[in-house]
Amino acid sequence: MTFVTLLDYAAVLVFALTGALVASRAQLDIVGFAFISCLTAVGGGTVRDLVLNREEVFWVADPNHILLAAGAAVVVFFTAHLVESRLRLLIWLDSFALAVAVSAGTGVAMALDKPAVIVVLMGMATGSMGGLMRDVVVGEVPLVLKQGELYITCAMSGAIVAVAASSFGLASGLALVLCAMVCWGLRAGSIAFGWHLPVYKSRPPRQ
Amino acid sequence: MTFVTLLDYAAVLVFALTGALVASRAQLDIVGFAFISCLTAVGGGTVRDLVLNREEVFWVADPNHILLAAGAAVVVFFTAHLVESRLRLLIWLDSFALAVAVSAGTGVAMALDKPAVIVVLMGMATGSMGGLMRDVVVGEVPLVLKQGELYITCAMSGAIVAVAASSFGLASGLALVLCAMVCWGLRAGSIAFGWHLPVYKSRPPRQ
Amino acid sequence: MTFVTLLDYAAVLVFALTGALVASRAQLDIVGFAFISCLTAVGGGTVRDLVLNREEVFWVADPNHILLAAGAAVVVFFTAHLVESRLRLLIWLDSFALAVAVSAGTGVAMALDKPAVIVVLMGMATGSMGGLMRDVVVGEVPLVLKQGELYITCAMSGAIVAVAASSFGLASGLALVLCAMVCWGLRAGSIAFGWHLPVYKSRPPRQ
Repeated sequence: MTFVTLLDYAAVLVFALTGALVASRAQLDIVGFAFISCLTAVGGGTVRDLVLNREEVFWVADPNHILLAAGAAVVVFFTAHLVESRLRLLIWLDSFALAVAVSAGTGVAMALDKPAVIVVLMGMATGSMGGLMRDVVVGEVPLVLKQGELYITCAMSGAIVAVAASSFGLASGLALVLCAMVCWGLRAGSIAFGWHLPVYKSRPPRQ
Repeated sequence: MTFVTLLDYAAVLVFALTGALVASRAQLDIVGFAFISCLTAVGGGTVRDLVLNREEVFWVADPNHILLAAGAAVVVFFTAHLVESRLRLLIWLDSFALAVAVSAGTGVAMALDKPAVIVVLMGMATGSMGGLMRDVVVGEVPLVLKQGELYITCAMSGAIVAVAASSFGLASGLALVLCAMVCWGLRAGSIAFGWHLPVYKSRPPRQ
Repeated sequence: MTFVTLLDYAAVLVFALTGALVASRAQLDIVGFAFISCLTAVGGGTVRDLVLNREEVFWVADPNHILLAAGAAVVVFFTAHLVESRLRLLIWLDSFALAVAVSAGTGVAMALDKPAVIVVLMGMATGSMGGLMRDVVVGEVPLVLKQGELYITCAMSGAIVAVAASSFGLASGLALVLCAMVCWGLRAGSIAFGWHLPVYKSRPPRQ
């Protein structure tokens, strides 16, 4: 198993947990949990694989990803009530999923020797699209657009760091670890300490 | 025309009718009806064909699917006012569309000799994604996530039955008929008699 | 650079501006602006390229599209406050983007010798999907579904005119210019003078 495959598995697992937590907030049944978990878990990587026109979408090539995501959903269905704050857990798990998925997406695009812009975008898309689908389908405000928080910025920064490090000769595995660390560090700082970029607010919309 | 092609046509027609009914609830014009009908009718199968990386998406290979969906939209535009309860008709038509589309998706994936997990998922995706796009675009709560009803469970059960029946040697056409019957039977039971799985409700979200 | 490539660039630029204006209404930060701009700018063409199974998605083949969209987002971030009515500007820019993107989509599908129905649909999809994703992700009512306005009708009319003109022997470049003019003319008439088709309104939904 290559390092990028491992990253894909890890991203699937953690995103599946966030999907199941969102399903618990929407009070779905156990199959609904599995459905949202799978959508969240493989959504970003599916967009990546389709856009990059890979031979096979990663979870069609290896259906264990789906079984992992569905298994995670079942565990959350029976244990989510044990958690003090599901929303807090959701946000923190999502930060790990983001970091790992950005690395996975960046790694796949780097391995295909795509130009830097595309590598960065594939990292961003893999990291954000699964969570975006999760939130849009369930009707929550997408985390990626939450005002006054760093989110897509973390994804972009991590992917840029990986591309830069790799172009300076760092081994690709190390570059991806660095990517995940930068991405997660920024996101964690934003959640814990309110780090953010200035938002556009000269004037709110009139309607 | 193969049996799976026939199923694709039938699913397109019935999903198109549901799309037009949703458009009537949103009070769109006749081209808006056709747009939502086409999106609903081919959305699920398009996701299936892209993910399976088929040579051509089914309605690009045969544009009659689009003409059928647009024609259905026109008929609904001029006749929907004759119906006592459009919502009730919508929900029942959607149940038939779900059953037929799950069979069509399952059939395509079985014909490509995909592993069982992928076959089941393709059945679920073909059955649910068109309706999901319809509801998300128009801003209604997705039927697939309606609390306390069986929906995606019906899709999964039908697809699993088809895979099992086929692995026990049943001819694939019969397995697909069985799939549609199980899927529709469960969905109809849920609509008519309130069949459902226990939902997660130990605690609603705090915010 | 072919004429269709030029149309793709123009559509990317103008759609990116509309994405940034929507981001300003949602008060995102500068990276959020770029994210929504890129999604809007390349969303429609990406759907087209995936469905047509082209060798490479247009912006993966040429990442300058992405840099252009991100640059447009940055400009809007720093200048949107200078505009009297961002909503009005957004709607008018969107009308240009629609016209150009419909031409681009139609042109690509004509060059691939697809049947007329598919050419028209690819024009419609390229023109509408980017704006649809923009509006769904940010949670605004999609412009494409705004009641009592022509929108998807303009896209369809433009694409049909291009196909008809081309089948009567008009050079494909001229047919695409005609397509954009018809599409924009109808949309502008709808915005400025309230042109519309009769909407379905015999009865609003009961719930």
